[in-house]
Amino acid sequence: MAYTAVELIEHKRDGGRLPSEGIEWLIGSYTEGSIPDYQMAAMAMAIVWRGLDAEELAVWTKAMLESGDVLDFSDLKKPKIDKHSTGGVGDKISLPLAPLAAACGLAVPMISGRSLAHTGGTLDKLESIPGFTTELDQSRFRQILTDHGLVLAGASPSIVPADRRLYALRDATGTVPSLPLIASSIMSKKLSEGLDGLVLDVKTGSGASMARIDDSLDLATKMVQIGTDYGVKTVAVITSMEQPLGAAVGNANEIEESVAVLRGDGPADVTELTLALGELMLDLGGIGDARSRLEDAIASGAGLEKLKEVARAHGGDPAVLDDPSLLPVAPLTATIEADDDGYVTTCDALTIGLAATHLGAGREQQSDVIDPGVGIILEKKIGDLVNRGDRLAIVRYADEERWQSQKDRLGSAWTIGPNRVAPPDLILERIDSSNFEH
Amino acid sequence: MAYTAVELIEHKRDGGRLPSEGIEWLIGSYTEGSIPDYQMAAMAMAIVWRGLDAEELAVWTKAMLESGDVLDFSDLKKPKIDKHSTGGVGDKISLPLAPLAAACGLAVPMISGRSLAHTGGTLDKLESIPGFTTELDQSRFRQILTDHGLVLAGASPSIVPADRRLYALRDATGTVPSLPLIASSIMSKKLSEGLDGLVLDVKTGSGASMARIDDSLDLATKMVQIGTDYGVKTVAVITSMEQPLGAAVGNANEIEESVAVLRGDGPADVTELTLALGELMLDLGGIGDARSRLEDAIASGAGLEKLKEVARAHGGDPAVLDDPSLLPVAPLTATIEADDDGYVTTCDALTIGLAATHLGAGREQQSDVIDPGVGIILEKKIGDLVNRGDRLAIVRYADEERWQSQKDRLGSAWTIGPNRVAPPDLILERIDSSNFEH
Repeated sequence: MAYTAVELIEHKRDGGRLPSEGIEWLIGSYTEGSIPDYQMAAMAMAIVWRGLDAEELAVWTKAMLESGDVLDFSDLKKPKIDKHSTGGVGDKISLPLAPLAAACGLAVPMISGRSLAHTGGTLDKLESIPGFTTELDQSRFRQILTDHGLVLAGASPSIVPADRRLYALRDATGTVPSLPLIASSIMSKKLSEGLDGLVLDVKTGSGASMARIDDSLDLATKMVQIGTDYGVKTVAVITSMEQPLGAAVGNANEIEESVAVLRGDGPADVTELTLALGELMLDLGGIGDARSRLEDAIASGAGLEKLKEVARAHGGDPAVLDDPSLLPVAPLTATIEADDDGYVTTCDALTIGLAATHLGAGREQQSDVIDPGVGIILEKKIGDLVNRGDRLAIVRYADEERWQSQKDRLGSAWTIGPNRVAPPDLILERIDSSNFEH
Repeated sequence: MAYTAVELIEHKRDGGRLPSEGIEWLIGSYTEGSIPDYQMAAMAMAIVWRGLDAEELAVWTKAMLESGDVLDFSDLKKPKIDKHSTGGVGDKISLPLAPLAAACGLAVPMISGRSLAHTGGTLDKLESIPGFTTELDQSRFRQILTDHGLVLAGASPSIVPADRRLYALRDATGTVPSLPLIASSIMSKKLSEGLDGLVLDVKTGSGASMARIDDSLDLATKMVQIGTDYGVKTVAVITSMEQPLGAAVGNANEIEESVAVLRGDGPADVTELTLALGELMLDLGGIGDARSRLEDAIASGAGLEKLKEVARAHGGDPAVLDDPSLLPVAPLTATIEADDDGYVTTCDALTIGLAATHLGAGREQQSDVIDPGVGIILEKKIGDLVNRGDRLAIVRYADEERWQSQKDRLGSAWTIGPNRVAPPDLILERIDSSNFEH
């Protein structure tokens, strides 16, 4: 072999560009186990330091992608379009969006993730539906997608095994916050889905993995470039994650809120973002009149029907989608109340996400078990007028000790001031290939 | 425990200072094996990137040192003084210097290293003496030092085990060239010798591990500071390694040249550097009239007698020191000749060191076996007048194929120009604690 791992590490350490064949050899050898974790850890830290340029990143992502199976749905006549969010608090958008998009004629082969740190995960939310399984083999994944135009599952072990190994290593070596490593991790998984188009929702603000908008823009641009170079139409929006999306933060309660959106009576912000991202998905799929088609799919109940149909295909009980009171709910209830008169000026997504996680709605560690009935319903958000003693949130929890440890933290998420501030704009920027074409 | 490895890595990655207890915990846990190599690899790369400040470096070095046994020769009445060189080509200074220093009244507990890359190693040179063993247990090490005032050995496994493990990891992860990691590796080993004083010979130039004098000065300053903080009188000199020291580059031939120095007829540069470093050692040991004592030890033969006596104590045959023609010598001979008239303007240490290594005088990998009889004798060095066809060097080698692969490289070490240039100054700078006291 023309390269050694040490030479490649040294080259990146000294600020050099990694040759394409070197990247391919490195990722391939790491996946098959002939490069040890300690060499990849040093390389990952060198990349945190020195970065990867656009060409290195494209090759790195492709090598990750090709470490495993790449799905091929070219026999399906529908446009294959997916959406990915970098994760936030109360971000249940996939749950109403994917069925609406499928109801409007797209095929949505959505591979999702789980809750980690303060952010929720689509798979955990879906598993609040009794019986719903997100672990599918490839033939079942294909069958559900073919039959219903939508499948909602976790990545099988044969999908991007390099990322499975590298992500766990990065988590243990302080090498998570690298834009090219984040971009390649996300895009290798998404591009394995055999897509025609991809909409990226890159969060910014307190509850996002990146708090600074410049970083979010940079990440979005990198991912759009990777997707475009790979031949998948890709568009990104930067959206605000200063406060949670909607009112529900948890798992079962986010299913309930998603059903409300599909019934046409969901919170304005969740509904609006669902429609905006749905428009982008339909546009990428070449389906016109996107907005009105999506609104029709809500009004006619076609979106909700699609979700019920797909839940049944995944082994889930669709009755909970008609009657959300059948969803699991934690036994104990508490409230957070306003300690002053005025306007809500902060409703901090990170704080609320952390409190929900520690109450049992999320995972502090990969091995933690989630309680689907634990959650928070926000009753006041940024810009709302409150009087002292007004309820800011209702909390459902199962463990008194955990609640006592989290209630002060949760209460600190709100600040109240004398002057009204407007809620943050939902969609801040849009990035597509026109941003870097030349 | 108050720290996790990931938190410490993240802190250093973000440019923070590592807390002292964190460093102690990290090195201790790594030595006992509870921190895996992949976390230490990420930390090492973060240190290559962000460095360690003086206080972190002192704590890091002490934690390394305390990972194993620290020798204690306080019962010996003589001053315990050692010398360390950062390594070069033809650098046999320890071989004449240590016996001269011992003959002048110092105790020299010298733990040395082996050849690696293009630089030679004192242990390999000593092992050209038939029977000479450099592997001693601690009681034998102490006995030879007590009896003779000098012992010349490798580090036993109980000396700085953290460095043994970390050095191998750095070699495999592109994390060798970090001044604090180099300084702590050297100083932890030297401070384990139970010294009163230490002279550091930090090389600069083509054949040194650091080619730029600023880096050598920085390394020297860091090491003097570490030694001084630890209570060991420490002084460093920066010396030139643009061309090899002396005429001999190899192993047995460097023993022969060292004997010549001890007989008073060695090359001027080797003799001068030996005396200069010897003066510093005697000064640190509080022994006056250093220069004339050292010259007397040459003139009287006391230095050579000391080397013979110590060789015998190590199991070696001292006869080769009286009659160097008994030393091993490789069977084949070749010459390098001048291809032009003029003055030697370059006699490149790195090129010559690499050629000698590839011919079998050194190691490309830790597992390589050295041929003690392989070597190069330089007949022309910088500033010498040559005529076309004059011999520049004689090469002794054992493998024709290796020689054919190296002869062009070796020939390229010399450049000849019309104008005489002076040989580089031998000693460029001196650093002691006055350089940073305040």
